[in-house]
Amino acid sequence: MIIKNGLVYYKGKIVKRDIEIEGNKIVKIGKNLEGESYNAEKKLILPGLVNTHTHLAMTLLRGYADDLPLNEWLEKYIWPVESKLKGKDVYYGSLLGIIEMIKSGTTCFNDMYFFMDKTANAVMESGIRGVLNHGCIELFDSEKGEREIKESLKIMKICEKNERTSFMFGPHSPYTCSKGFLMKIKDLANKYQKYIHIHVSETKNEVENIEKEYKMKPMEYLKDFLDKNVLIAHAVHLTKSEIKILKEKNVKISHNPVSNLKLSSGIAPIPELLKNDILVSLGTDGTASNNSLNVFEDLKIMALIHKLKDPKNLDANESLKIATENGGKALNLKIGKIEEGYLADLIFIDLKSASLNPEHNLISNVVYSMDTESIKDVMIDGKFVMQNRKILTLDEEKIIEKTDKIAKELVNR
Amino acid sequence: MIIKNGLVYYKGKIVKRDIEIEGNKIVKIGKNLEGESYNAEKKLILPGLVNTHTHLAMTLLRGYADDLPLNEWLEKYIWPVESKLKGKDVYYGSLLGIIEMIKSGTTCFNDMYFFMDKTANAVMESGIRGVLNHGCIELFDSEKGEREIKESLKIMKICEKNERTSFMFGPHSPYTCSKGFLMKIKDLANKYQKYIHIHVSETKNEVENIEKEYKMKPMEYLKDFLDKNVLIAHAVHLTKSEIKILKEKNVKISHNPVSNLKLSSGIAPIPELLKNDILVSLGTDGTASNNSLNVFEDLKIMALIHKLKDPKNLDANESLKIATENGGKALNLKIGKIEEGYLADLIFIDLKSASLNPEHNLISNVVYSMDTESIKDVMIDGKFVMQNRKILTLDEEKIIEKTDKIAKELVNR
Repeated sequence: MIIKNGLVYYKGKIVKRDIEIEGNKIVKIGKNLEGESYNAEKKLILPGLVNTHTHLAMTLLRGYADDLPLNEWLEKYIWPVESKLKGKDVYYGSLLGIIEMIKSGTTCFNDMYFFMDKTANAVMESGIRGVLNHGCIELFDSEKGEREIKESLKIMKICEKNERTSFMFGPHSPYTCSKGFLMKIKDLANKYQKYIHIHVSETKNEVENIEKEYKMKPMEYLKDFLDKNVLIAHAVHLTKSEIKILKEKNVKISHNPVSNLKLSSGIAPIPELLKNDILVSLGTDGTASNNSLNVFEDLKIMALIHKLKDPKNLDANESLKIATENGGKALNLKIGKIEEGYLADLIFIDLKSASLNPEHNLISNVVYSMDTESIKDVMIDGKFVMQNRKILTLDEEKIIEKTDKIAKELVNR
Repeated sequence: MIIKNGLVYYKGKIVKRDIEIEGNKIVKIGKNLEGESYNAEKKLILPGLVNTHTHLAMTLLRGYADDLPLNEWLEKYIWPVESKLKGKDVYYGSLLGIIEMIKSGTTCFNDMYFFMDKTANAVMESGIRGVLNHGCIELFDSEKGEREIKESLKIMKICEKNERTSFMFGPHSPYTCSKGFLMKIKDLANKYQKYIHIHVSETKNEVENIEKEYKMKPMEYLKDFLDKNVLIAHAVHLTKSEIKILKEKNVKISHNPVSNLKLSSGIAPIPELLKNDILVSLGTDGTASNNSLNVFEDLKIMALIHKLKDPKNLDANESLKIATENGGKALNLKIGKIEEGYLADLIFIDLKSASLNPEHNLISNVVYSMDTESIKDVMIDGKFVMQNRKILTLDEEKIIEKTDKIAKELVNR
């Protein structure tokens, strides 16, 4: 198929190009390509956004507990409900989140949660791309650790069966997993050539506890665990010497600005990380702490909060790159770029909306003013999953109704 | 007309009520009201949002100059283009902004700019409500001051002719207007019983210059000018003793969080102002420094940035009140509340979207996760101006096309 006459975000610029797609891949980008065509005239084509840190089924808890300090939020509201979660809940919560992501232009997400076989089902049915990781909470109990590894390997096998699911290991954090457990996970990740997704240095409190326990900063404590296959979510509280470690070890970061503001965690030193050539990608975190999965919204908020120190920080081009190309690199997938050889995950934006006009600078408009309603069509893995804002693969209305019922039953379970 | 079966944001809660509208007013709220009806089943009805600080026609410069320090942005880009502005530009720029506002649920705005007779025309044609002020830039030149006052009084008369336009005086700021000029404006405001809209303490630099010049903080310098009829935009840099002055004088604030982040101005001490019972409303500022006019978006960003210090700051209810009821008070209009005697400025939100589900807490969902696409219908002054996301009063496509052309011609003029 040839996508003809569109404006394409190509090599950091907006240019008029045709895109040839074969199967699930972009095979050619050029002018006046010929073949069976899809007319993208007056549309802007971007790579789908990549959300590198989610807990997808937490859509079930959207709006359930807001405006609270992290500890109270977790201990009184989130954990008690999560302890009653069943596979069916996760399946529907995942579907609801996938609808929201597709409609806001996200084509791939990296999810750490439980009952991930159910999220895998939701990915397969919906047509989205997902990187799935069983969240391992070892709690310094080696038997529990073994069970978590067993579950992880089960999810790995499920993910390998499908083209649009891939797998990462997901040890939750250094305060819920022992160093021994983390090193075991590292060995497995090396053995199976997988990445690792972990929460580190989200809150001040967490950093202080690790310092008290081990007389080291978190990244120093984790030094032999860290390498280029590790994706750290949050990384809000970092010293200069920790940034040096992240750089040396080529660690990747998932920045979660909205969640970090909402839970008073702080603002991660992203301009410093970028200056040090550390790979920064963007994540929404779960909807219980955001409360949406709209990466375009978080993209603007990210750019804004880092301008507080310097208006030149995170300009529109760099911000868009963080949410696309860098996301692909963080997840070790050929996505987030419109280039030959990349997977055909594309979003088609209608340029005829007030919020995208005038067209002085389309990249600025996409980052700073676009309403996600302008995203009309979404293609993932070479197939349209949304056209004219209607999701083709799922029955939106039925899923929304069902999930509302399940969520209300869950919190009263 | 009776709006039947809707969920209504009434006295700070969401309840099922019917709303009776007569002419442009809400005359009754109750259960099972009878008469010619509009069915709002499965819709949430909120008062339209109020944007208390805009420079509407700056939509023409959206995306023209981003990611720059304030001085460079103003001196190299904004001012040179503004010096070439014509009335026709302002008319089309205003229409473009009005389309964006209606589509994102804003039903009234407070605008300081030039050629305000043209913005008045745009208000009248579109059906929106607008408070208009000629931006007076006296530049310590008393003859220029007289001309600014003359223009202001002309705009005042135009605004008084129409039901949906009202007027405020708009002396630009204490660094572009002399104290004598400001006091003259204050006398006129008293004489005509009007409010005054002014920029104060937006940037650190501005505060330092006033301190250098007058050996006083800006609010101390302005003490005899300030009173309950003054609406200050920005108010980012305030000392405790200045907050005390604002409280004593009952001054009103328009908080502009997005613009203040984007231009590195800072974060206004809103939680402190609220603790002191100072009226805080919400403004987007112009699109050249935001770059959108979506108050729902700014509402979320406002709530988030003030949570950086304490997650309990600006909860969802308080945030929504700032963008509605407080906006009405800031503009001295009976808007921003669904109550008997208030003007019928209402927005109708379809609850069947993924981003508004599950419905644990609808106010949280509206503030933290709603996509503005869910705002289906907008009523202003008792009349529908948008239904099913189509604006009834304007030809959107034609205006967008025309404004794009004008904007491109303007920056090359």
